[in-house]
Amino acid sequence: MLEAKDSEKTPLEKLGEFGLIDHLTQVFTLKQPSTEFGIGDDAAVLKFKDKNVLVSTDQLLEGIHFDLSYMPLKHLGYKAVVVNLSDIYAMNGIPTQVTVSMAVSNRFPLEALEELYSGIQLACEMYQVDLVGGDTTSSDRGLYLSVTAIGQVEENESVYRNGAQPNDLLVVTGDLGGAYMGLQVLQREKEVFKVNPNNQPDLEPYSYIVERQLKPEARKDIVSLLKELDVTPTAMIDISDGLSSEILHLCSKSKVGCMLYEDKIPLDPTVISACEEFKLDSTMVALSGGEDYELLFTIKQEDFPKIKGNPNLTVVGHMTEADRGAHLITRNEQSIPLKAQGWNSFG
Amino acid sequence: MLEAKDSEKTPLEKLGEFGLIDHLTQVFTLKQPSTEFGIGDDAAVLKFKDKNVLVSTDQLLEGIHFDLSYMPLKHLGYKAVVVNLSDIYAMNGIPTQVTVSMAVSNRFPLEALEELYSGIQLACEMYQVDLVGGDTTSSDRGLYLSVTAIGQVEENESVYRNGAQPNDLLVVTGDLGGAYMGLQVLQREKEVFKVNPNNQPDLEPYSYIVERQLKPEARKDIVSLLKELDVTPTAMIDISDGLSSEILHLCSKSKVGCMLYEDKIPLDPTVISACEEFKLDSTMVALSGGEDYELLFTIKQEDFPKIKGNPNLTVVGHMTEADRGAHLITRNEQSIPLKAQGWNSFG
Repeated sequence: MLEAKDSEKTPLEKLGEFGLIDHLTQVFTLKQPSTEFGIGDDAAVLKFKDKNVLVSTDQLLEGIHFDLSYMPLKHLGYKAVVVNLSDIYAMNGIPTQVTVSMAVSNRFPLEALEELYSGIQLACEMYQVDLVGGDTTSSDRGLYLSVTAIGQVEENESVYRNGAQPNDLLVVTGDLGGAYMGLQVLQREKEVFKVNPNNQPDLEPYSYIVERQLKPEARKDIVSLLKELDVTPTAMIDISDGLSSEILHLCSKSKVGCMLYEDKIPLDPTVISACEEFKLDSTMVALSGGEDYELLFTIKQEDFPKIKGNPNLTVVGHMTEADRGAHLITRNEQSIPLKAQGWNSFG
Repeated sequence: MLEAKDSEKTPLEKLGEFGLIDHLTQVFTLKQPSTEFGIGDDAAVLKFKDKNVLVSTDQLLEGIHFDLSYMPLKHLGYKAVVVNLSDIYAMNGIPTQVTVSMAVSNRFPLEALEELYSGIQLACEMYQVDLVGGDTTSSDRGLYLSVTAIGQVEENESVYRNGAQPNDLLVVTGDLGGAYMGLQVLQREKEVFKVNPNNQPDLEPYSYIVERQLKPEARKDIVSLLKELDVTPTAMIDISDGLSSEILHLCSKSKVGCMLYEDKIPLDPTVISACEEFKLDSTMVALSGGEDYELLFTIKQEDFPKIKGNPNLTVVGHMTEADRGAHLITRNEQSIPLKAQGWNSFG
């Protein structure tokens, strides 16, 4: 978890801002036909022709969003890009470019930033997006990342949060709660490490959920899968703050209510066993955990046969008239109002 | 300078992240036909048709880029937007949208962020750009701003840094050194204030340079002026880090040298008198001061008659073959190699 490294350390002031940007970005190559010009001028120049352009932005702060004592810098770079791409997919679009801005204190040597950028580069490769800009500056302490993702979507094919209708089916991709339980495991191991630094944690049984936390993936397969299945979602959002919070966003933007069925919520067996171990309710974890970066969308009932049986997609409920509110129907058939217990950094 | 305020203070945790974004952005209106959808979904949706898209991003950190003891929050919001728009103009483009991300500690009440956003809103009005996204989170201390500016430019009309040719004329807009001298005045007044808080500073004689520092403007007039004059710059950059540093960028990207004439550098009388008062060399201030957000560009010699006599434009030198290097020709006709003494936050 905490690797001992005897490698060389180069202080950042040796390179200066421009030297640092040049050094960190020189290995990046451009892949997207829409990138006319990337890094190295006052602005990037992009060419989307008749397609619409999607823009989304997100921040990651040390001490607020990540803890470098268990988050390797390469994973952090990867995650910073991926969580932004997830927003582009959630619009039914294809991400094409990112810009990455970074404020970093002098305690980070150049080699640490190379690690960070190797993760950014890997994400750019995996998702076929171009790094086209950014800004690098010093901070008085800590590491701050701000990523802007740019994508494209055919005109009239953007899927918003506000298109859900009563009786539409509510569908979620993948499974939920893994990233949150991975975080629980990592935080516990950090405490163990503090007490006894020689104790080597065995994370093997938790590898799925730890990876969900440290190296999440955005659902790049879903936009093309839905096209293949000839299904256009009526509304869509990505699950960054927990299922409950995202359902409430769809409900409020679409002016509908919702019935969510507890027994339908997809959970990986590792999540269930970790919840038992940590004495946490797995439904609560899925509802409020966050950071799974799955997609949540609604479809017309008549499209159900097209998605039925697909292992990537689970129908977890349906939308209702707004005045019926948003409810969880428990395994005991009790109806409980959904509350947004999503993550709030000001809380 | 430091206003005493007895007004109400609302803690941020009262609103939470989504409430805060909604509250701060509700007064913003959309003006650009290219904005299909702004704030309120996973991403903004923009429509540029056959135009190319420009993207630029910049960060402003408390304690590094600004000092709230003399930078009013409204001015900071204004400046954060304007410095990004300057990059779009420097590509010969027109800015159309911005996203603003902010990390802020709990020491800021809601009312402080309202001030900040009133400055952002004013900049959006003045420059006719739409706020279409952003992210708001807490920081463990201080205020961090990250702005991405988006603009449009006709295909094949982007002006890069790399197009200057030997014998092209080097042209600067407005005058230089004001923002840096304004900062000197503000820093001196801060020291005076520390010693005697009852001492009311008289900033009136310095109003031009103080405004250059606190409320800079981007040269939105130049792109259309050059169109009217039928002049297409061969290369262009904005002056954020000082004339010297920007000339060297043009030289290295265009693979040319440069002769800059000291006696041509445009200086406002207020800058000259402030330099005398602070015992600073006004040429050095113009070369290394930064934050003026003027434009620096090169034009073909044959275009000189078109710009001659225009009060906004000053020819300060000409480009040469690369092997002649970049030099300042002093008033005594000495030739001194230009050095990048632009601002480096890692220095």
